[in-house]
Amino acid sequence: MKIGKQTIKLKNTPKILETSSAVGPKESNGPLGIYFDIKCSDVFYGEKSFEKAESKFMKSAIDNLLYKLNLTNEKIDYIFAGDLLNQCIASGYCIRDLQIPFFGLYGACSTFVEALMLSSLFVNSGYGTKVLASASSHFCSAERQFRLPLEHGNQKPPTAQCTVTGSGVALLVPHDIEKKVPVVTYVTPGKIIDMGIKDMSNMGAAMAPAAFDTIITHLKDTERKPEYYDAIITGDLGKEGTDILIELCKNYSVDISTVHRDCGKEIFDLNERDINSGGSGCACIAAVFSSYFYQELKEKRLNRILLVATGALMSPISIGQGESIPSVAHAIAIENEV
Amino acid sequence: MKIGKQTIKLKNTPKILETSSAVGPKESNGPLGIYFDIKCSDVFYGEKSFEKAESKFMKSAIDNLLYKLNLTNEKIDYIFAGDLLNQCIASGYCIRDLQIPFFGLYGACSTFVEALMLSSLFVNSGYGTKVLASASSHFCSAERQFRLPLEHGNQKPPTAQCTVTGSGVALLVPHDIEKKVPVVTYVTPGKIIDMGIKDMSNMGAAMAPAAFDTIITHLKDTERKPEYYDAIITGDLGKEGTDILIELCKNYSVDISTVHRDCGKEIFDLNERDINSGGSGCACIAAVFSSYFYQELKEKRLNRILLVATGALMSPISIGQGESIPSVAHAIAIENEV
Repeated sequence: MKIGKQTIKLKNTPKILETSSAVGPKESNGPLGIYFDIKCSDVFYGEKSFEKAESKFMKSAIDNLLYKLNLTNEKIDYIFAGDLLNQCIASGYCIRDLQIPFFGLYGACSTFVEALMLSSLFVNSGYGTKVLASASSHFCSAERQFRLPLEHGNQKPPTAQCTVTGSGVALLVPHDIEKKVPVVTYVTPGKIIDMGIKDMSNMGAAMAPAAFDTIITHLKDTERKPEYYDAIITGDLGKEGTDILIELCKNYSVDISTVHRDCGKEIFDLNERDINSGGSGCACIAAVFSSYFYQELKEKRLNRILLVATGALMSPISIGQGESIPSVAHAIAIENEV
Repeated sequence: MKIGKQTIKLKNTPKILETSSAVGPKESNGPLGIYFDIKCSDVFYGEKSFEKAESKFMKSAIDNLLYKLNLTNEKIDYIFAGDLLNQCIASGYCIRDLQIPFFGLYGACSTFVEALMLSSLFVNSGYGTKVLASASSHFCSAERQFRLPLEHGNQKPPTAQCTVTGSGVALLVPHDIEKKVPVVTYVTPGKIIDMGIKDMSNMGAAMAPAAFDTIITHLKDTERKPEYYDAIITGDLGKEGTDILIELCKNYSVDISTVHRDCGKEIFDLNERDINSGGSGCACIAAVFSSYFYQELKEKRLNRILLVATGALMSPISIGQGESIPSVAHAIAIENEV
């Protein structure tokens, strides 16, 4: 049921039965390393290209989720998935091997929450009883596609972010499955916001206004205060974008500073070389939610979170043609039942 | 409600209230020219790049649909859209200006039916009362992205297809809107099928097995015979792909030859120079359904159609890395009420 301007209330509160994550070496050695399921010390993951490796990260995360639940791929009704690569090839080639009816998504770094929203809505409506949401990214495939070949060894400005290598996946099931796991209560799909930022090395600044718009709309639509949530978690605004988001909210007389967290700031040690403003990429929020935050929810250290993934919808071509960076943010409320 | 293996029955049968299409010069001068709403004689559409022109084709189609219904963009709940360009920039930049909550999709040439399926399911569940589905493609932006720069003037083999320039859009509304228009009864999202085709100039052959799989699954799931439909319409298999699809069905003892039609074969005069196997691209089925077939339904020359969009999920990078072409086909049953 739609409430307010753009939020949907999920009256059947589907459950997130299980999650799984697979990451590369930098993520494994970072502050959240102990939480990831699969940690690979090789960015190639035994494959011959970064693109194939990215696909394998997603495949491993999905296979591991199925293994945890003793499920086979035929039991899955639908999968919603996407990634950052041209023509979403990481997802396409991964899901080819799974034989699950597939909805391909492109929401840049917002893809994971876009997938979570749609799979939750599918289960809420009874369109399926086991629906997967998945997303991936890879530092090396993203660098050469969006920026410069790795061999170039270029330096980056402090506002730049470091694409997360890995994948995260979640399984949505109906509420009547007997297991105490977090449920989805609301989703707020975002509008595209573009404040005219043209600097591809400052995605945080480009995406923060979209996060602001979606968070404020969600709070209005649901008549909730920021404090309702134990955490309002953005995907990958990084240091720069986080500061802008908090200031935008403050100027609007909404203080989210005490509950705001950002996966991009938590996945890496921000003092480490080349991390600059923090992590980014579809896998940032996908892997961090599917490991650390899901566990925090299950162990009741967090009980109510608003997960907000932001995506920058430009391409190197559009930037080359003088365009600015349009961004979108999607939000999903995930809560423990009392 | 899910029925059979992968089909969903839409018990509230949402209505396709209106459609709109915008196309370029080659399409305007083709056999279906009289059916399109907006016909532009300039592939640049007054813009400075093909990419911006593609975005404008989608924008014009949407604006025209809103104009036909005397609606403003604020009245639209959600939009599902996508295109062929890297990072789906045609859709992103178009929808930036519309301020409608946005779900970005990537299904290659299957995108329009993917969008139609999701918007129908949204309306069926009451998540929105006015939901748009849209897709675009552009011959010139697709050529330089997937194949060779136009300036190269390369010849193509007879199995190659010609990307349609334009866009198609449809508005889904609840069944209780009083207007005699076609309704959506079933959707069958497809699995990814890959029969090992590696020839980027023969997409029809790569996509036909996916169409076969989805059509057969749909018929089984719904317990319908091909003859139930006045037309089973594929998106853009072209001559080559159509022949393969019909033969695959025949080998499976299912004869669709009398009801099968293909938008790629109908949008262009197949004897014209450089058309080769027919039209392709997201806009092929999007523009042909949103003009010709929608009118055929409204005027009851057709009463039951199965619209099947196929998409090839490779990228030039994956083909360069030796991969074959994975394909997907999504089907939606659209019917007049008796």
